[in-house]
Amino acid sequence: MNPIANTVDLNSDMGESFGRWTLGADEALMQYVSSVNIACGFHAGDPTVMRKTVQLAKKYNVAIGAHPGYFDVRGFGRFDMDVPLDVLQNDIIYQLGALQALCNVENVKLSYVKPHGALYNRMARDENVARVVLQATREFNASLPVLLLANSVAENVGRELGLTIKREGFIDRAYLADGSLQSRSEAGSVIHDVAQAAERALQLVQTKSITAIDGSSVMIQADSLCIHGDSPNAVAMAKAVRERLEQAGIGVSSFA
Amino acid sequence: MNPIANTVDLNSDMGESFGRWTLGADEALMQYVSSVNIACGFHAGDPTVMRKTVQLAKKYNVAIGAHPGYFDVRGFGRFDMDVPLDVLQNDIIYQLGALQALCNVENVKLSYVKPHGALYNRMARDENVARVVLQATREFNASLPVLLLANSVAENVGRELGLTIKREGFIDRAYLADGSLQSRSEAGSVIHDVAQAAERALQLVQTKSITAIDGSSVMIQADSLCIHGDSPNAVAMAKAVRERLEQAGIGVSSFA
Amino acid sequence: MNPIANTVDLNSDMGESFGRWTLGADEALMQYVSSVNIACGFHAGDPTVMRKTVQLAKKYNVAIGAHPGYFDVRGFGRFDMDVPLDVLQNDIIYQLGALQALCNVENVKLSYVKPHGALYNRMARDENVARVVLQATREFNASLPVLLLANSVAENVGRELGLTIKREGFIDRAYLADGSLQSRSEAGSVIHDVAQAAERALQLVQTKSITAIDGSSVMIQADSLCIHGDSPNAVAMAKAVRERLEQAGIGVSSFA
Amino acid sequence: MNPIANTVDLNSDMGESFGRWTLGADEALMQYVSSVNIACGFHAGDPTVMRKTVQLAKKYNVAIGAHPGYFDVRGFGRFDMDVPLDVLQNDIIYQLGALQALCNVENVKLSYVKPHGALYNRMARDENVARVVLQATREFNASLPVLLLANSVAENVGRELGLTIKREGFIDRAYLADGSLQSRSEAGSVIHDVAQAAERALQLVQTKSITAIDGSSVMIQADSLCIHGDSPNAVAMAKAVRERLEQAGIGVSSFA
Repeated sequence: MNPIANTVDLNSDMGESFGRWTLGADEALMQYVSSVNIACGFHAGDPTVMRKTVQLAKKYNVAIGAHPGYFDVRGFGRFDMDVPLDVLQNDIIYQLGALQALCNVENVKLSYVKPHGALYNRMARDENVARVVLQATREFNASLPVLLLANSVAENVGRELGLTIKREGFIDRAYLADGSLQSRSEAGSVIHDVAQAAERALQLVQTKSITAIDGSSVMIQADSLCIHGDSPNAVAMAKAVRERLEQAGIGVSSFA
Repeated sequence: MNPIANTVDLNSDMGESFGRWTLGADEALMQYVSSVNIACGFHAGDPTVMRKTVQLAKKYNVAIGAHPGYFDVRGFGRFDMDVPLDVLQNDIIYQLGALQALCNVENVKLSYVKPHGALYNRMARDENVARVVLQATREFNASLPVLLLANSVAENVGRELGLTIKREGFIDRAYLADGSLQSRSEAGSVIHDVAQAAERALQLVQTKSITAIDGSSVMIQADSLCIHGDSPNAVAMAKAVRERLEQAGIGVSSFA
Repeated sequence: MNPIANTVDLNSDMGESFGRWTLGADEALMQYVSSVNIACGFHAGDPTVMRKTVQLAKKYNVAIGAHPGYFDVRGFGRFDMDVPLDVLQNDIIYQLGALQALCNVENVKLSYVKPHGALYNRMARDENVARVVLQATREFNASLPVLLLANSVAENVGRELGLTIKREGFIDRAYLADGSLQSRSEAGSVIHDVAQAAERALQLVQTKSITAIDGSSVMIQADSLCIHGDSPNAVAMAKAVRERLEQAGIGVSSFA
Repeated sequence: MNPIANTVDLNSDMGESFGRWTLGADEALMQYVSSVNIACGFHAGDPTVMRKTVQLAKKYNVAIGAHPGYFDVRGFGRFDMDVPLDVLQNDIIYQLGALQALCNVENVKLSYVKPHGALYNRMARDENVARVVLQATREFNASLPVLLLANSVAENVGRELGLTIKREGFIDRAYLADGSLQSRSEAGSVIHDVAQAAERALQLVQTKSITAIDGSSVMIQADSLCIHGDSPNAVAMAKAVRERLEQAGIGVSSFA
């Protein structure tokens, strides 16, 4: 019998400001999460935002992940795009290298990769897209873990390529019975209640499963739970989740 | 007495295509130059163009330099901009890191840095701008040589920062008596004649000086001569210069 | 029995340079075509390129069409994107207004609209996308004809919206038996032979049909034939097509 | 003797959100100002943001001005750039045409032009830049008033070109004795106190002058007072200014 996990990672997207525009409560959230996915300039985050976010991550001693996305600032990487595979592969290497350099000048480690938005979702179902993003990561640094949707196509491709794959679970999104996420456009797909999200976090860690929208139980082996940083109650949710987990004896720490 | 130099570097800007648009005869030129300055995506060159250019440089065994510019694709980095100094500094680190990653995946070395266009010109006269670009380079990799306009403000700042500075001379641009370049907007500022350019190359290497527009002689200690890659006769000029130098017993090889 | 058409329009994409990069032989082609589709800055064409192209169209007395595309310069509007429908609708109005202003200052008429690249192709099969682009056109100016792929979903949506729809045929692309274009990635999908293209132009006009890749005959009622401006032999093809049509007594003139 | 003005315009920059990022309390401010300067997509404001801002302006019955800027989203149009004059001229026409189209589809009038940020400041001192921006406006629509810094170079150029020029005064910025604005980088250059700003508004309207930083009085004939929309207390300031003016019998209404 599998022992109950006694630690889990909490991750959140950060560094998604751009030029004059700010987004997210990065510093407040850093007190509750263990890993931060830093945007790399293609969907959000300019080099100065990136560096400041790296500095914050260093200050709060959280793990830094690269958060590469489609080359589309206006769409915030949330519009799916049919990018030619070779173009996408080189776009990923470029973004990883840029963030690596900004980590190096701050003497901190780049610890993992989590793709962003529409690219993350595309990788969950499109094997070709998953493959080139993961190959790019392997070319860049084969020892970097990649954080992907649990039970996705990308997870299998990543293992096949010999990468260390970490699986992500969502505490504020409704799951379908097959383990996929219900579309945001459907009613009830996003959970706003902080206490409910905290209970779901605990359920995910303790039972390695979640109750799907139809009442059935779905296996979700989550190495990391996502805290959506751009929701209005992101900080309250992060705090509640962390406290609920710690009350139950589960530590919050990076997988990397 | 100083011995006559018996080698000199020939450098050319490359990888300045972008998406659908192509520019320059990169592969043809690579047969005559010893160093290539590869655009890093901010003024030209997308990640796929960058990678292909790195592959070409590897094939022709020429030294690779980073060619960072202002964040302005539409202006091709040729419009001067008052970028805040911290923004500019991080922009440079970002670009160097991105190209470094694309060099790494091809197992080739990034050997030097040469700033592009309006940024290069601004650094020649503006100490603050020169300082942050050079500090960025030092933060990124303090051992990278930087190629700058001979006799410029930037050259002095670079030495003060402890960087290895290499000086660039222009064979197809008219010099003023004070060693600065005559503005392109003035008549006679650009030399189109291939044979004349080749003679000027030889003069620069053998005499460490050039005849200015007023007939006087200006000291120019050039470690590298620039071949403008986007002029219509770029390949013919590169060929003529290389042949003229080699006839005179001067080898063409990278300084890096 | 339908009379044989005695005129047809020849159209070509133009104004697809951008900043430092040039593309296409616009002026040479203007001597053979009757309509020019001018890029509007979102996939190619900056405002200065647009104005110069409008000036050329005025000089050669060809009809000006707006050629709006996805907001993606790097992808040249050729990567399909899932742009939210309201965003896409306003993007189209914005582009039409910008080009209209540049026509106004040159005292020439904006005569029609032809969507570009991946957007054009998406409209041919996706009713929702077709609808918002056409609604945007109707909001902007309900009297503007829209040039669309003959036999496409968009053609039907356009008529339903009360717009004047003109149908485009391709002389250098292989058709499938159902009247759709064979994918460019398949062998034989692009016809490079100038004389063959000219014969196909004549066949399209005289028979309102074309021979499909499987040898069958497909009905294509084409009001306009497309000359691809960015192929190496674009000018030769335009010249051959025009001469072949005129030899057969068919005039080349704009539908607008 | 000049009669005391009994109305003045209050203007504010709006529509400066972009894609995923929001900025400013547009709807709250619209209740206090009489004119709104809508960003045109080059420094901020995408077409959908523009349209929504036009709709809000219609709802609150405030005059709509175009707020064109440099082509630099990342810099928010606040970095000065040496844009070639012909490029700048066409950039302005493009932006005006785009906003005009979005006004047209909402059946509202585009009433004036106010350049943005670094471009506005450059026009205040650089005659060549001022001239091309104003020529572009005249080409687009010679009857559109242009709102410019009172006492600036641009004001004179505009009158010379036959345009209707409206002069702007600043209630929250310190003036130098020569009527220019003290640089934001100097201490005391920005007035944050709402009551003080309201008093300055009244002084500007009633006395056509303002107390400069050295205590002297400077003539400022302001047709419009600027409310900076992106400061944290923008709404409180707009409300206080409007109430103070109305208490003193001065109406707030558009000049257009």
